[in-house]
Amino acid sequence: MPDKVLDDISHRRYNPLRGSWLLVSPHRTKRPWQGAQEGPGVCYLCPRNSRAGGEVNPDYSETFVFVNDYSAVKEEQADYQAEASSDDLASLLLRAEGVKGKCYVLTFSPKHHLTLADMSAAETVPIIETWTRIYAAHLSPNNPLSAVAAKLDLMSREAKPESVAPLPKEQLRYMQIFENKGAAMGCSNPHPHCQVWTTSTLPEEPAAETVQMGKYRAEHGGRHLLADYVKLEMEKKERIVWQNDGFLVVCPWWAVWPFEVMIIAKRHARALVDLTAAERLQFAEAIQEVTRRYDNLFETNFPYSSGIHQAPLEGTAEEIENSYLHMHFYPPLLRSATVKKFLVGYELMAEPQRDITPEQAAAKLRDCGGELYRKNL
Amino acid sequence: MPDKVLDDISHRRYNPLRGSWLLVSPHRTKRPWQGAQEGPGVCYLCPRNSRAGGEVNPDYSETFVFVNDYSAVKEEQADYQAEASSDDLASLLLRAEGVKGKCYVLTFSPKHHLTLADMSAAETVPIIETWTRIYAAHLSPNNPLSAVAAKLDLMSREAKPESVAPLPKEQLRYMQIFENKGAAMGCSNPHPHCQVWTTSTLPEEPAAETVQMGKYRAEHGGRHLLADYVKLEMEKKERIVWQNDGFLVVCPWWAVWPFEVMIIAKRHARALVDLTAAERLQFAEAIQEVTRRYDNLFETNFPYSSGIHQAPLEGTAEEIENSYLHMHFYPPLLRSATVKKFLVGYELMAEPQRDITPEQAAAKLRDCGGELYRKNL
Ligand SMILES: O=P(O)(O)O[C@H]1O[C@H](CO)[C@@H](O)[C@H](O)[C@H]1O
Ligand SMILES: O=P(O)(O)O[C@H]1O[C@H](CO)[C@@H](O)[C@H](O)[C@H]1O
Repeated sequence: MPDKVLDDISHRRYNPLRGSWLLVSPHRTKRPWQGAQEGPGVCYLCPRNSRAGGEVNPDYSETFVFVNDYSAVKEEQADYQAEASSDDLASLLLRAEGVKGKCYVLTFSPKHHLTLADMSAAETVPIIETWTRIYAAHLSPNNPLSAVAAKLDLMSREAKPESVAPLPKEQLRYMQIFENKGAAMGCSNPHPHCQVWTTSTLPEEPAAETVQMGKYRAEHGGRHLLADYVKLEMEKKERIVWQNDGFLVVCPWWAVWPFEVMIIAKRHARALVDLTAAERLQFAEAIQEVTRRYDNLFETNFPYSSGIHQAPLEGTAEEIENSYLHMHFYPPLLRSATVKKFLVGYELMAEPQRDITPEQAAAKLRDCGGELYRKNL
Repeated sequence: MPDKVLDDISHRRYNPLRGSWLLVSPHRTKRPWQGAQEGPGVCYLCPRNSRAGGEVNPDYSETFVFVNDYSAVKEEQADYQAEASSDDLASLLLRAEGVKGKCYVLTFSPKHHLTLADMSAAETVPIIETWTRIYAAHLSPNNPLSAVAAKLDLMSREAKPESVAPLPKEQLRYMQIFENKGAAMGCSNPHPHCQVWTTSTLPEEPAAETVQMGKYRAEHGGRHLLADYVKLEMEKKERIVWQNDGFLVVCPWWAVWPFEVMIIAKRHARALVDLTAAERLQFAEAIQEVTRRYDNLFETNFPYSSGIHQAPLEGTAEEIENSYLHMHFYPPLLRSATVKKFLVGYELMAEPQRDITPEQAAAKLRDCGGELYRKNL
């Protein structure tokens, strides 16, 4: 193979047939299968236990952040240079680019069984603070959000995650915070945690949203798409699950997953660092409402993937200004704790398809608020 | 809810945040969960058994086609008319359109356990013939491919599927043929079968491919993207799994799923009706090679979703001419019969991610040809 280097470096490849990119992490095939590490006493996320790479976790008491032992992207690696037009078709159809980055794991608490749904809003705030600090620490100095981040009091707190140091040497472009919860969503360790993948490229989904939000503002006198959407849903009401002063929880009009939900900031916040302490608590309350309602819906530990979209770490002034903080929840369950919706054949080959409407889903989620169905831990 | 009609009709909704559409089938919530129908003696696809809707299957001996008892789209339904600009934001952010269509199920053979991998190429040909006939039967009279279809000798064969009649009253735009194989890919009935969903709209994935293939031809002197890609891969060799005179089996440069494969026609065929009888046999051989190698790889009944992309039923002359017949296979297994790749948090929120390279996957698939690992049934 001429491009032998692609066997070893994290990179992106372009799909010319559908016009999209994907991330390739060939070095990751070396990681042990983490499913094998499940079972009592071997959790690599609990305080004082040792991880796959041999390191021992500190005796932490709130959140705990560390660099992923098997990161999908590497911080340092050989450059990739496609053979310069040695071959015309290859440069059109076999396109790739190197991707550098750094991946973190963040546990929600020292307790092995404490899911977000089991926690109070106050207990959830430290997680949001940690997200905010990691994001702030990786912001480009050219990003107008760095000045905002510098003024955050939580930046100076001692709890600043040690393991984020040393920061990546090169400025990265985007930070994706996400959680896979439950075996149905590929989570191999039940100790509640999320991941933070930071890359030198802007990934497909936030890139698509950036384009759409930019277009909308340009075409509608500078109004934000999601600000307009919040306004509209607050009038229509039928897709609202819950709200407080700062955040709207809604089953979006365009939801794909049966009980898909978005948490949207009510005022324009570009990123986590734009939130005040009061808003961080409001955000924590919204996360609580979503995860508790999910668990109550089918009286089960409800699986989902969730993720936060916010301003890129580095970008044009317009991109930063057009960004609008929100969080997606994609849960697979459809009818019960065991019956899930599969997004498979037609969905993969043609177009996503759903059965229950978002309005019906919102009504069900509205109805299952209150205490968590199971005893809090 | 003002748009009450959307609670009952199949429709598409637009996601303005990422600029894409999804299909909504509210009436489908009425279907019984088919997982419950598994078990000996109750297969609703076997000859002479009765289906969920009460109809009794004929004593068929080859393939068998029937209208899906719980189709995702309806043939006849109320029209959807968004309230005419009663509300400016709603017309921007709550966009929908009605979708009509017809969905079929097609069994591969009367035998409950005979998967494609268990069949010979000769036994697979009737399936390809049935696909071709259903496609031909739904072509728009304005489509240049109808003249081609009219000349196919297999159209006049007695085996013409009865149950396709009566044809949909309105001309439909696209036909998606796909198979979900295995419980991991949401298949609720193990009797080998595929589905054929036909819609009045061009779904997202073929729409994206149509745009990309059109652009490529326009920019490269009328050359077809996939014809160039076949040529390039035949030179490079490292991603080829198998080939015969008519078809190339390749792990595409841009594969997302661990052992993703494409079967691509070597000469420009716009759709199934363009294939000669000899080419249908070659296509059957290619399908055999893929499915047998899949089963041999981890010595298991390998799950996947597969689908055929070809010319729309109705479209502009350019769209039809730019189309290029190919088949995708998206299999989830990564390391063994039980360890699969999850396309979850990062993949859903940011960008698809893979570990093993397509070149490594192709090498493994090249190495596991030959007889099926288990005894043929
Ligand atoms: O049509 P089936 O077999 O009932 O359903 C299966 O395939 C459909 C099309 O890919 C999916 O929408 C369903 O989630 C899946 O379970
Ligand atoms: O990082 P983990 O937990 O090992 O892996 C999980 O999340 C990743 C990011 O969504 C996916 O690529 C993996 O397929 C999934 O198993």
